[in-house]
Amino acid sequence: MNAPFVFKDITVVTPDEQGQVHVTAHAWVCIDGQRITAIDTEQSYLQKPPVPGTVFYDGRNRIMLPVLVNAHNHMAMTLLRNAADDVALQPWLFDHIFPREAKLTAQIVAAGSRLALVEMIRNGIGATADMYYYHEETAKAALEAGFRLNTAVDVKKQDAAGSTLIDAEWLNEQIQRFQNDASGLLRISMLVHSVYLYEASMYQPLARLAEATACPVHLHLSETRKEVMDCQKRYGMKPAARLEAFGFFRTRTLAAHCVYLDDSERSILSEHGVYAVHCPASNLKLGSGVADITAMCRSQIPVVLGTDGAASNNNLDLYRDLRMAAFLAKGSREDASVMSAHEILPMATSAGMQALGFEQSGRIEPGAFADLQIVRTDVPGMTPLGDPVSALVYSANSSDVESVMVAGRWLMEKRELKTLDEEKIMFEAQAAAARLDLDEPSC
Amino acid sequence: MNAPFVFKDITVVTPDEQGQVHVTAHAWVCIDGQRITAIDTEQSYLQKPPVPGTVFYDGRNRIMLPVLVNAHNHMAMTLLRNAADDVALQPWLFDHIFPREAKLTAQIVAAGSRLALVEMIRNGIGATADMYYYHEETAKAALEAGFRLNTAVDVKKQDAAGSTLIDAEWLNEQIQRFQNDASGLLRISMLVHSVYLYEASMYQPLARLAEATACPVHLHLSETRKEVMDCQKRYGMKPAARLEAFGFFRTRTLAAHCVYLDDSERSILSEHGVYAVHCPASNLKLGSGVADITAMCRSQIPVVLGTDGAASNNNLDLYRDLRMAAFLAKGSREDASVMSAHEILPMATSAGMQALGFEQSGRIEPGAFADLQIVRTDVPGMTPLGDPVSALVYSANSSDVESVMVAGRWLMEKRELKTLDEEKIMFEAQAAAARLDLDEPSC
Repeated sequence: MNAPFVFKDITVVTPDEQGQVHVTAHAWVCIDGQRITAIDTEQSYLQKPPVPGTVFYDGRNRIMLPVLVNAHNHMAMTLLRNAADDVALQPWLFDHIFPREAKLTAQIVAAGSRLALVEMIRNGIGATADMYYYHEETAKAALEAGFRLNTAVDVKKQDAAGSTLIDAEWLNEQIQRFQNDASGLLRISMLVHSVYLYEASMYQPLARLAEATACPVHLHLSETRKEVMDCQKRYGMKPAARLEAFGFFRTRTLAAHCVYLDDSERSILSEHGVYAVHCPASNLKLGSGVADITAMCRSQIPVVLGTDGAASNNNLDLYRDLRMAAFLAKGSREDASVMSAHEILPMATSAGMQALGFEQSGRIEPGAFADLQIVRTDVPGMTPLGDPVSALVYSANSSDVESVMVAGRWLMEKRELKTLDEEKIMFEAQAAAARLDLDEPSC
Repeated sequence: MNAPFVFKDITVVTPDEQGQVHVTAHAWVCIDGQRITAIDTEQSYLQKPPVPGTVFYDGRNRIMLPVLVNAHNHMAMTLLRNAADDVALQPWLFDHIFPREAKLTAQIVAAGSRLALVEMIRNGIGATADMYYYHEETAKAALEAGFRLNTAVDVKKQDAAGSTLIDAEWLNEQIQRFQNDASGLLRISMLVHSVYLYEASMYQPLARLAEATACPVHLHLSETRKEVMDCQKRYGMKPAARLEAFGFFRTRTLAAHCVYLDDSERSILSEHGVYAVHCPASNLKLGSGVADITAMCRSQIPVVLGTDGAASNNNLDLYRDLRMAAFLAKGSREDASVMSAHEILPMATSAGMQALGFEQSGRIEPGAFADLQIVRTDVPGMTPLGDPVSALVYSANSSDVESVMVAGRWLMEKRELKTLDEEKIMFEAQAAAARLDLDEPSC
């Protein structure tokens, strides 16, 4: 257990429960165990009886904000970074990504997941929703790191005859294990890849099982124009309508991308409180398009942010993507006033934590988990600071993140990683990536 | 004068004269005085007679590429960073920017220019084209920094009666001073703000003077839909056609933005070899739109890159904007294969240097000026490296820039600034920014 911590004289930037962002200068923030216990002024702090062993952190020229939340990720795809760029979506998937993924092993996924954790922690991220193979390896890595993870699990199994079954019992076991993990760091979702990948007969049973087990769902939705057109052709309905008709959206749902929604689909997502995960960099890089987050927000859809996998980004750096989300919304609507920094920041903090099922994280307030980061403002790119919320969304570079804490535990302190061996992880990731090379013999 | 320098065992990424990007692993790059003298293999280097006093730089896990070129800037607007965001263009200019700019003094511009230099050097930029007030202060700051500057000067002066005159004699003096500066670091352009800001009668004499003095021109072109519509209404022609008809584009021209060009305007720019300065972040942030660089490149228009001022960006960080330029082109055309990393990188290096008039910079090759930067690849966000060109455009963070050299002189060596006093500059910039605050009394 950590000694009590006090951040002295720091500027706190945080959304409240309604998503309004507040700025408090000269705050004294007290942490005890896993939680924030008080946000004082200097005067109110000094009036309290001193707590022996308290460790102080000088907050001058620093901003404290919640850790960022990366709500759509394929963590181990860090190993495919810069491996296949500038290629159209279909050949990218079928000629470059799938053949490499066919070589994945548990050990390779573990190496890629650890690399993703190192990169995310350095970039001020403290929680992610992952969707990939060998999810147990990723969960193990997240626990080692002290990082919050919502992992999507595939309940479809092949029987001996090669038929696809839905393994309800296995899902129940997974839910018990993940939701009850003593760390409190793990959450689980059911992986439903998309409306286009499975046999039509699979969807209704999957939706029923999600509802019966109250299991959240993580899926891709309306990523490309082709997906929408194919769905319309196959089912006579748009993807969101088709998924709703199958019985989805009755449990908490992360719907990644949402690039091509019409008004009626926005109503469906809004009605069910589906979280739309905006992945602006990936949507541009793969040539998918630009999701209209302004329209989604006006329809009361909760929008959160994701990087997507590093093969289509090519980083896990939400500071770049926060800025891109705001800029794209303004540029595509030709209106500089839409999607302000104050509207964007909660997407990557408080709303993101809600979307992943970490309801007591994502805000700097007494009683919340101490899931926070410290950003330096005494750097040229943050000088003059101006409005601190603008500064975080438009100016901050992920390298300005000085320290990251999750549940009261340092993951990075003054740029030094505290839970992971960065050198070793980079070395092992290089080796794992080499095994995915298409010129290498399969293992 | 520096001792001879040798970068050992480094990966060199450079465009050639035709704009093709080449990658050379394990290169030994020799610098003597201001220039690159050789690019050897280990074997060929070791066969040469040793040069006493040679200083070596270990290039393992490092990429050497040319310094980046920021081809449209308002440097001292760093002081207005995060001062007025999420505001539509007209109130942004008239209620926020112009009232602050009315308070500018030579000293304030000097402070803001120095801050811009610190930020750019840290981000791997070694040259910029600036357009702002008190250009002599900016030039002085660039010389102190050892930084390449193309500055745009305003030849319009008010006479005693308040009429606007064009001061040809003054321009000639300025051209002599800047082009002949012993440092070789300075270039000059004539500032022609845009087709919309001046009296119609001013344009033809300005164009004639540019041609008569062979002076390059730096202007804004087709930044917004409104500019194009107003020009059409006022002159019955689109902006590029109107400027050509006034007699512009006969000397080298930097045309910033180019968001709304039609085919015939692209033909005009192409025919005259006008450099289109793409400012993707600023165009989005101010709600202007997305310039179609794919169409420009297909029309053989030389496209270069700029941040624009820090008030509309809110940084001077071309690594973010390189990535954004590629992504936006792909996303807006819904085609991941357009504007590859190999096509984007020359815009910010070799083509940028040509556009600014530094013809012997922008490429890593024997005989060229040693205008180069070293980027670390042994960081999580660049692991695995994959294709080094992809890595530079899609993954590199400006904080990965380890060292920056211009004309053989270190501006930053292993993250330490060598020509500027960073702490003092940040302190003075804070004070200068405070003087521009709208709640402060005018000075």
